[in-house]
This record gives sequence, structure tokens and C-alpha cells, in this order.
Amino acid sequence: MTYTLVLLRHGQSDWNAKNLFTGWVDVPLSDKGVEEAKKGGELLKKENILPDVLHTSLLRRAISTANLALDAADRHWIPVKRNWRLNERHYGALQGKNKKEIRDEYGEEKFMEWRRSYDTPPPEIELGSEFSQDSDPRYAGEPIPRTECLKDVLERMLPYWEEEIVPDLKSGKTVIVAAHGNSLRAIVKHLDGISDEDIAGLNIPTGIPLVYELDEDLKPIKKGGTYLDPDAAAAAIQAVANQGK
Amino acid sequence: MTYTLVLLRHGQSDWNAKNLFTGWVDVPLSDKGVEEAKKGGELLKKENILPDVLHTSLLRRAISTANLALDAADRHWIPVKRNWRLNERHYGALQGKNKKEIRDEYGEEKFMEWRRSYDTPPPEIELGSEFSQDSDPRYAGEPIPRTECLKDVLERMLPYWEEEIVPDLKSGKTVIVAAHGNSLRAIVKHLDGISDEDIAGLNIPTGIPLVYELDEDLKPIKKGGTYLDPDAAAAAIQAVANQGK
Repeated sequence: MTYTLVLLRHGQSDWNAKNLFTGWVDVPLSDKGVEEAKKGGELLKKENILPDVLHTSLLRRAISTANLALDAADRHWIPVKRNWRLNERHYGALQGKNKKEIRDEYGEEKFMEWRRSYDTPPPEIELGSEFSQDSDPRYAGEPIPRTECLKDVLERMLPYWEEEIVPDLKSGKTVIVAAHGNSLRAIVKHLDGISDEDIAGLNIPTGIPLVYELDEDLKPIKKGGTYLDPDAAAAAIQAVANQGK
Repeated sequence: MTYTLVLLRHGQSDWNAKNLFTGWVDVPLSDKGVEEAKKGGELLKKENILPDVLHTSLLRRAISTANLALDAADRHWIPVKRNWRLNERHYGALQGKNKKEIRDEYGEEKFMEWRRSYDTPPPEIELGSEFSQDSDPRYAGEPIPRTECLKDVLERMLPYWEEEIVPDLKSGKTVIVAAHGNSLRAIVKHLDGISDEDIAGLNIPTGIPLVYELDEDLKPIKKGGTYLDPDAAAAAIQAVANQGK
């Protein structure tokens, strides 16, 4: 018995295109992102990898990506579960700021530390500020963060993984998780047992389904999984690595 | 304590535009239908009627309508439940046939009986035929029909109403049901206590939210509810009544 998990990072958003730190700011997909999402769904259909249940974050770019991809795969009708624990990393006070400006203002070292260090979060966002979520009704009553490092993301993602995603996998369902660069990196780190140091070098491209076959202990049969379009994935991973340059 | 229920019939589909009997055939929205869905969501936002939970059928035109409307209303992140019991009426052997052709072939009386009588279903669809759903994975294991009259729709809708929608309403949530002409007519018949005869004259327009405030016994405070765009609703109801002419 093996289990099938599909990870899908949302297509390009308006703010990816503008090179802004997005985090929990709820921006829409760009036109390119819409096309990426549809193409992701067409790949699923072509490879006959048909999700039985969808898990998403509470952010529009992941929700829209899932809606478009599943529609293209003729799986628009599957059950959906949404949770903030699959949200992108909260970028704290950096949310809404231009990546190049932050790099110029704080220097390469600080910039890379905030972007890529495993356990150093950026400064907290000010409550009530333009890009804060403290009065957003979708998070009412939830213990939401004001900034996060990747370690924080992994720690708040894991309870959802264990309580909601693992039972769906163990029931034999093909599970698709439509989420974000960092919440998906957290899942991959957990699945592949990547070290705190090595995770810095892992980039996940937008819109290309990443398929994991898992054994009975939910260990990947092939470490790193399989991208449904490996050439496009390799090219996109290189492009992500160049962000902010 | 009152409860709020929003009924939203899907926007125009490709087959509405072509005047075909659709039923359970899973056709997409037309461009006009996409615009109707977005406008429905804008009306909800403008009137500050903000759904907390969504119930849809398993059909693309209702699912897409809900996705587009909720995105326009900034409520794309609410929980979703889907069930075949909210599907359109199964039109049996009429599915995929042109309304005008059926009218010309069988005559006005039979045509109107199949379209509007409360308890006369059309002939059953042949298993395995082009527009049958018997091998569709979304209905696997479910006791799905091969044809339905409105009475059948009401009877298969009611268990879902009682078990899934009523508890959401009673917990104080604003509930939106994105569904179809006949599954929504069944809900309205049940809520407003419309007779088997009078329900024939009730048409629900596409894409215009119909809001019911319900009392503690889930009886409508205003019979018939309130359309958020009453003028557009009145014009559209007349147009629906003219279908097939």
C-alpha cells in the first residue's frame, strides 16, 4: 500500500510579479499565475493523478490556484478543507515592502537571513497597520503570528498535517495540498527529513504539481518527489533562487 | 435570534445559452454566467451580507459561480461543503436535448408537464449513454436517480437540508447555498410552504442572491425572501418563464 500526495504551489501573484514581500497579505493571482494554475491542472489530468480531497490555506492565491487547477483536471467537485496553518510564512514588518529595497536598506546578509535562515524571524508587524491581519475575520479566535521564520511555519503546520492530512492519506485518498512556498517547504522538510541547514537551498516552483508516493510510514519512496513537468520545474527553481537580485 | 440564508442560482451556462436540457450534465458557465456570478458577489459585499459557510452541488456551474461570487465578496476563504443532493433536477432521457425540439416533437402539453409538473418525471436515461452519470466517479456508491420530477428533487434534497444546512444556520452562521433552478425551488417550496400546484409558477433568476431571514423555527420572516437586485430579478424571472418559447 502506498499513498499519493500532490503539492501545488500557487501560481504567480500580483506581488510576486512586483517583487514585494507578501506573506499573509491576500493578493490575487497575476494573469500569468492564472495560466500556471490551469496548466498545473492539465498536467494532473494528463498523468491521471486525480485528487480525492483538497487542502488549502486561507489565502486567495492558493484557493484560486486550486479552483483553477481542479477545474482543468475535472476534479472541481472534490471535498475541500481550508486552514490558516497552511498559509505562507508571515513576513512580519517586511510585508508589503519591496525585496530590492529591503536588500539595499539592510544589506545582503540581513536580507538573506530573513529570507532563508531557518530560525530568525523578521521584526514583528505593527498591530493595526496596513498589511497586518489582526482584525481579519478569517483568523478570529486563532493564535495567529505577527512574524515567522520557517521553523515557526513548520511548528504551526505540523498539527494540521497530523490531524487533517495524514488521516486523509491513510484512508487511501489522493491528497492535494495547494499552498505556498514556505508552507510547502515545511512539508517537504518534514517528509524528506531535510536538515535545518539544507532547507535553505530548497526552492519550490509555482504551478507545477510535485507528486510524492509515500510508504506505509508516510516516508517518501523517492526522496524529493517527482515534478510532473521536470524541465519546467528545474528552470523555475533557478529563477526562484535569483529572486531579489 | 434570526438566521440568514442566501440562495444563489448559478449564472448562465453554455447549455442555458443553447436552450438544451442540462440536468446533471456538467457544463461550464458561459461568459455571461461568469459576469453574473461576479456581480452576485459584488451585491453581497455591497449589502454586507457575508456568508460564513458555503454549500454547493457537485456540478461545475454551481461550484464556479460560488467561487467567483465569494472571491468578489472577499469570502473565498470560508468553509465549503458539497453534495449531489443539491444538484439540478435529473432530466432523464431529455438531458442533452434541445428544448424547442422536444416541444415540437412531443407537443406543448407533454413539454410543459415534464418541465413543470410536480410529480411527473421524464423517461429514464439509458445507462451508459452519452449524458448519463452512472460511471461518474463523483457519484460512486450514491443512490443517484436516472430521472427526476421536482417532488423527487425535494425528497432527496431534504435530508441534506436537515442534516447539514440546518445545523449551520442554527449555529448562527450566514449560510450561502449555490445551486440550481430546481434544487433551489425545492428549498423555497419547503421554506415558504408553497403548494404542489403553485410551485409550477415559481422561477428563480440566475446570479442574483436571494436572501431569507428566518425565525427560530426556520420560517421566513418575509415570505419569498428578498432579492438583492429586485429590478433585475423581476426582469430575469420573466425571461425564465419564456424559456422554450
